[in-house]
Amino acid sequence: MFLLCAYLQKLGVNIVLEQETAQLFTLTTAYPVVTKENLSSFCDLVVVIGGDGSMLSVAPFAAQQNLPVLGINLGKVGFLADVHPDELEKITTILSGNYCEEQRSLLQMQVFAGDKIIAADVVLNDVVLSSGIATKLVEFTLSIDNDCVCDYRSDGLIIATPTGSTAYALSGGGPILHPDLEAVVIVPMFSHNLSSRPIVIKNTSAIDILVATGNQDSLYVSCDGRENVTVPPAARVRLDKAAMQLRLVHPEDYNYFTTLRNKLHWER
Amino acid sequence: MFLLCAYLQKLGVNIVLEQETAQLFTLTTAYPVVTKENLSSFCDLVVVIGGDGSMLSVAPFAAQQNLPVLGINLGKVGFLADVHPDELEKITTILSGNYCEEQRSLLQMQVFAGDKIIAADVVLNDVVLSSGIATKLVEFTLSIDNDCVCDYRSDGLIIATPTGSTAYALSGGGPILHPDLEAVVIVPMFSHNLSSRPIVIKNTSAIDILVATGNQDSLYVSCDGRENVTVPPAARVRLDKAAMQLRLVHPEDYNYFTTLRNKLHWER
Amino acid sequence: MFLLCAYLQKLGVNIVLEQETAQLFTLTTAYPVVTKENLSSFCDLVVVIGGDGSMLSVAPFAAQQNLPVLGINLGKVGFLADVHPDELEKITTILSGNYCEEQRSLLQMQVFAGDKIIAADVVLNDVVLSSGIATKLVEFTLSIDNDCVCDYRSDGLIIATPTGSTAYALSGGGPILHPDLEAVVIVPMFSHNLSSRPIVIKNTSAIDILVATGNQDSLYVSCDGRENVTVPPAARVRLDKAAMQLRLVHPEDYNYFTTLRNKLHWER
Amino acid sequence: MFLLCAYLQKLGVNIVLEQETAQLFTLTTAYPVVTKENLSSFCDLVVVIGGDGSMLSVAPFAAQQNLPVLGINLGKVGFLADVHPDELEKITTILSGNYCEEQRSLLQMQVFAGDKIIAADVVLNDVVLSSGIATKLVEFTLSIDNDCVCDYRSDGLIIATPTGSTAYALSGGGPILHPDLEAVVIVPMFSHNLSSRPIVIKNTSAIDILVATGNQDSLYVSCDGRENVTVPPAARVRLDKAAMQLRLVHPEDYNYFTTLRNKLHWER
Repeated sequence: MFLLCAYLQKLGVNIVLEQETAQLFTLTTAYPVVTKENLSSFCDLVVVIGGDGSMLSVAPFAAQQNLPVLGINLGKVGFLADVHPDELEKITTILSGNYCEEQRSLLQMQVFAGDKIIAADVVLNDVVLSSGIATKLVEFTLSIDNDCVCDYRSDGLIIATPTGSTAYALSGGGPILHPDLEAVVIVPMFSHNLSSRPIVIKNTSAIDILVATGNQDSLYVSCDGRENVTVPPAARVRLDKAAMQLRLVHPEDYNYFTTLRNKLHWER
Repeated sequence: MFLLCAYLQKLGVNIVLEQETAQLFTLTTAYPVVTKENLSSFCDLVVVIGGDGSMLSVAPFAAQQNLPVLGINLGKVGFLADVHPDELEKITTILSGNYCEEQRSLLQMQVFAGDKIIAADVVLNDVVLSSGIATKLVEFTLSIDNDCVCDYRSDGLIIATPTGSTAYALSGGGPILHPDLEAVVIVPMFSHNLSSRPIVIKNTSAIDILVATGNQDSLYVSCDGRENVTVPPAARVRLDKAAMQLRLVHPEDYNYFTTLRNKLHWER
Repeated sequence: MFLLCAYLQKLGVNIVLEQETAQLFTLTTAYPVVTKENLSSFCDLVVVIGGDGSMLSVAPFAAQQNLPVLGINLGKVGFLADVHPDELEKITTILSGNYCEEQRSLLQMQVFAGDKIIAADVVLNDVVLSSGIATKLVEFTLSIDNDCVCDYRSDGLIIATPTGSTAYALSGGGPILHPDLEAVVIVPMFSHNLSSRPIVIKNTSAIDILVATGNQDSLYVSCDGRENVTVPPAARVRLDKAAMQLRLVHPEDYNYFTTLRNKLHWER
Repeated sequence: MFLLCAYLQKLGVNIVLEQETAQLFTLTTAYPVVTKENLSSFCDLVVVIGGDGSMLSVAPFAAQQNLPVLGINLGKVGFLADVHPDELEKITTILSGNYCEEQRSLLQMQVFAGDKIIAADVVLNDVVLSSGIATKLVEFTLSIDNDCVCDYRSDGLIIATPTGSTAYALSGGGPILHPDLEAVVIVPMFSHNLSSRPIVIKNTSAIDILVATGNQDSLYVSCDGRENVTVPPAARVRLDKAAMQLRLVHPEDYNYFTTLRNKLHWER
């Protein structure tokens, strides 16, 4: 990070540090510190150092403030964070205005007990409903735009955006959704019914998952891999397209399918 | 068919027979006969007696002429033809204006040798590229909007509309696409690369499949299960959203997910 | 149960009740009560009333004492418990010596911390190693007969007997193993590596799963769906063919593939 | 090949050429030429230069004559041919007696029209029954040891040995069978019934596939990818464990799972 800051300073860029990030370092006095909710008052671009996981946690805040996000990947190049620390010169090119900007859709998740919202979150990747305990069968009913789709008996359900379709949903047998597609994919996990299949629908559809009263224990919802939210029997998980989108910045030579080929080892 | 004609006549409906269909019967003098290209000059609704297969062959003509289509299913109720011969009273209700009309998207398929179109067709379900011989490995390159996606070594490739996503593509491991979704799914068949996955993209994207010059023999394209079209090495299969859509008529109580549950045995 | 007891008494059969079962009922004084460890001293056949789940819990005890087991299924006919309460006359036929007896193999599971066994169990269906929390990636190394197979990063691993191959492992994409086959199947759960596949090996092979020291938390093992056993980082789960087999009694018209077709809806 | 011959000659090894192979080269007078049926009278080890495909065609002859086979792989190292031309020194080690020999099981295939055998072959990898035309639905009934398993409506059926389980069957969703396992796997291809699954059985079981009389055209059987054998409606394909086994020679450091990891890119 110090290397990056030094590099950016040489370019004459003003740097501010996000508060929680700043607290991880001792020499934070060097730069102004702002809370993540106030980033847009002080900056025009959010640079995230980490991997796809770090991008996920920044996404709701950046999207809310309409701030573009660029990811520097400390590990292997990811789907979201695709600038390698060895290629900081790419940042110069990006700052000079030569870059590729994508809009990535987000999902808003709300848990209702009756008419009352008892939990809410916004995700870039996916929402996973499950028993919270691996390999425990749970029961729930999926509806789309108020039409009942199916009563499921399975380990759970993954609902993923196009961005999330190449993450957990893919391990579960889901298809790859192109980021331009205004869609979500619903992937049953270890379904008891062997003819269950992933379903792809418009992201403007309203998804409701009613947790059956027959479940002995509460279920859990995990949003982008964050801590579990409790969903008691008879509660309802509601998913809608989020009002805001994530502005994702890539180097100008970015190509979605190239990233896909590299990450999934499609090249020979 | 005679039963249906009698039923419709009692309702005071004017009946015309499509020429090829008429030739299958001896008593064809009873009704006027028109060619399938001229149906719209003589009728307001096409009633197809048969199954989903019959619907597939009618779809391009009906869509071309903007004629709504209703299917009477002689076998088990299908995805497309969903009126059973025992429920002809549903037709009365439909003719009285109480029905549900869906727009189903179609795909235009063209085979290019250089700049020259050597074959073309329009499909409601799917286009299947393969060796024409089961279990023979073929090689081709998939591009979407001129971006290379992948070089495939597989038995072939299925490209399906939402309507076709519940047909052959589903047996091949593809997801279910809701008919409202303006998308197509691309499903590799028995891919040599085990990390190949179905890909869902916007149906407004241009799909190009370049047949590798390394293939010893020509490949074949099958459109909605119709006879194979030859695709020699170095030729290119091009898929675009068709300009027209199919107007599909259902009884007013039609519900997509109910059909899905019944056909896929999701109900217990 | 009372019905069954009355039926058996009329046949002149001596009835004893297993202790824990007896405690669920008030009128237990009618029959002698024995502990499950001593069943073989008092009876020649164990009749289990319940479903496949009840059969799983009885299996280790019955196998240990070499006692044949017959299952009366209170719900839908299962894979293991295949006599319906409406067909008690089948029991007469079975008691007269006309029945079909199968030997089902079992797996012995041991958890080692260094050289010390910290937990052990015997399963008829499967052993599931996971984070204990749904959707959490864990890391471990699989070895077979001391040969390293693979380092996994996945939600977990299912190891199933032929009997268990039609249960949880099947939902996870595993194959069906015929009960006569002396084999086990190893199924990765939501593997990060998309080319991971189920592996079938001889059941006389020794399977070792070494939990990576890099896991932040302990993993868990569930045996036939029973309560989780803790497996701390650096511990090892060891699986071997159990010394004993389960003697499973079926009506004489029993056929494995008929059960399979019925349970998986293969019939049209 | 000349390089290899020179290398072997320097080692003092007597070389004979198989007749068909010899005819591919002009300088064949240098070595004695024998027919493939008579190899065992003249040699103790068959060295195959090529890839896994070449090994497949040699397998029935070598197995018949109980001759061990060693594969030199001209392309990437394969599952069967695992000595690279750059490592000819491994051959010295092997000839000095330090090697690893595996027994691989084979399947005997016979096509019956009534009681008459109309075709027969022996395979190391797999037998594929299909329409001979890609993507055409065929109907047939599978029986195992005279028990009916299922009526299939699918593109076809793959029956693979453990050796073949990592070839075509794997692309079709089949599991990996360890070579030590005396088993075969049956994999339905694009089954109409979504709950169809691969089935693993003992290789001593008799497999019968009865081609339904309802099929309009003949079906085809392909043995290890060799030319198609016609199977008319009402004919029956019969598969049994072959009497002979293939003796497969590997370098002494050979390890099955290492090969698997390399070929399936399991290593990171």
